[in-house]
Amino acid sequence: MKTMYWKDNKLFLIDQTLLPDEIVYHECKTYEDVITAIKTMKVRGAPAIGVAAAFGMVLAEIAGENIEKAADKIKNARPTAVNLSWAVDRVLNSESFIDEAMLMYNEDIQTNKAIGKNGAAVIDDGDTILTHCNAGALACVDYGTALGVLRAANEEGKRIKVICDETRPLCQGARLSVFEMQQEKIPVKLAVDSAAGHLMQKGMVNKVVIGADRVAKGGVANKIGSLLVALAAKRFNIPFYVAAPKSTFDSENSIYDVEIEERDADEVLYFGKCRVAPEGTEIENPAFDIVPSDLITGIITEDGIIKPI
Amino acid sequence: MKTMYWKDNKLFLIDQTLLPDEIVYHECKTYEDVITAIKTMKVRGAPAIGVAAAFGMVLAEIAGENIEKAADKIKNARPTAVNLSWAVDRVLNSESFIDEAMLMYNEDIQTNKAIGKNGAAVIDDGDTILTHCNAGALACVDYGTALGVLRAANEEGKRIKVICDETRPLCQGARLSVFEMQQEKIPVKLAVDSAAGHLMQKGMVNKVVIGADRVAKGGVANKIGSLLVALAAKRFNIPFYVAAPKSTFDSENSIYDVEIEERDADEVLYFGKCRVAPEGTEIENPAFDIVPSDLITGIITEDGIIKPI
Repeated sequence: MKTMYWKDNKLFLIDQTLLPDEIVYHECKTYEDVITAIKTMKVRGAPAIGVAAAFGMVLAEIAGENIEKAADKIKNARPTAVNLSWAVDRVLNSESFIDEAMLMYNEDIQTNKAIGKNGAAVIDDGDTILTHCNAGALACVDYGTALGVLRAANEEGKRIKVICDETRPLCQGARLSVFEMQQEKIPVKLAVDSAAGHLMQKGMVNKVVIGADRVAKGGVANKIGSLLVALAAKRFNIPFYVAAPKSTFDSENSIYDVEIEERDADEVLYFGKCRVAPEGTEIENPAFDIVPSDLITGIITEDGIIKPI
Repeated sequence: MKTMYWKDNKLFLIDQTLLPDEIVYHECKTYEDVITAIKTMKVRGAPAIGVAAAFGMVLAEIAGENIEKAADKIKNARPTAVNLSWAVDRVLNSESFIDEAMLMYNEDIQTNKAIGKNGAAVIDDGDTILTHCNAGALACVDYGTALGVLRAANEEGKRIKVICDETRPLCQGARLSVFEMQQEKIPVKLAVDSAAGHLMQKGMVNKVVIGADRVAKGGVANKIGSLLVALAAKRFNIPFYVAAPKSTFDSENSIYDVEIEERDADEVLYFGKCRVAPEGTEIENPAFDIVPSDLITGIITEDGIIKPI
């Protein structure tokens, strides 16, 4: 099951807002369709939105759109992940938009398999690994970054168990990571985000592996809550790894200068159709936080495990 | 609005599972009704379940039940808060069950007002205070412990703002604390539990005040997620206070020997009628965690602010 595919000059994306209950591919005929799918998180995860952005550029070219304008709009669909800019610039600098997008599509899978192999080296037989949000196949074209490490460890015959944080407000951990691990037949449990500290305090977690939306100077931006998980891992001396392809790296900027996306209040105020708090309640809904470098044991890339930049 | 009242030899409790959408008083005619209300969290919060337990003993006496058996069953309705045992033993050792229960009912309000006054001294004009779960009027007979501190600061004319953590799985922060602050006209915002670290990282929080289910040697047991909030407060040098009456203190035991209640999987698997994760997903659902003493700035009691025991 791929997160997206290209067919008949259209991009088809699994609508991740409907998972795990329904598996429906959403059709994007225009680059604006791709932008809407990224903004509404039908497709999400830094590597996946990068590749979707590349195909967005192809759609803009096919339709004879103003390429500069399309590039600018796609780059700004969401602010925090660097992969949108990376992908758009790579396509812009290529000889053939479609060839480059297809190359990036295939590279993504190979990159994740390399990340998986490199990361599996630090996973021990019998480990219980906690992960936050979904840095899985669904955050990429296939295989995944953080969940790719778990897949690779499992494929090597290591008997691992996984704990997924729910990841409020959109529950990517509960809906997507749990689903992926169940599909893979890797033993998995779900806990609310708040439970991560207690599970580590009780000695129930051996390693943490998460993904990244941007790796920059001083740390990593990732799904809101990653910072709390990292603080708990530090407190209880649990190795804390970030799995991320080089396309997620931004060596120009300080991580503290990266814009942290604020998302719509209704994501917090509602769960599905169920309202959580009194109507009209004011909300803070930051989508990401920053894990400072001193809390990170290593960053697992396609080229090996490195120290934070 | 009181969390509970005694009338016509019956205990009436606001059904907190229905708040904030419906305000319905649930009638307890027998001590078993009280136990069920405590187990199902129609009434919750350490001080509130203590006073409810005292009236449960009165109901057992009125019905001519075996008092020792009733006492034992009430004490074991939930394992983590020490207030159930404290309340039952106090009633058992009194000359009149009903007089003692009524005394405890009235004392609870006075105790909370004293906690509020003592705590307000550390709150500054202009502070934004983050709180987790609901240590409010609804966790007591009235006024509240942590929220009592905020009420008292507000009554003293200090202009404060409050951020409530949602507090998955049962969302006592979103449903109850936000509601109480709105009723009090104190400016309040809601955030998912995972956002607490980011809000502190961004300098948006000046103080943290939470309640406690048990204060014992080495730290405090409180709602799951309190540990993560405390770790973030420590990291970002934000004062972290626990507001708790002496009835919550257990000076006999180490906090690490206290049983941490594991609650039903469906609390995590569903939000209202909305399912969060694939059917049949295995769940970890610890209801409390332990905040070690070194993370606590002070414990605000009715007798003053003290160091952890």
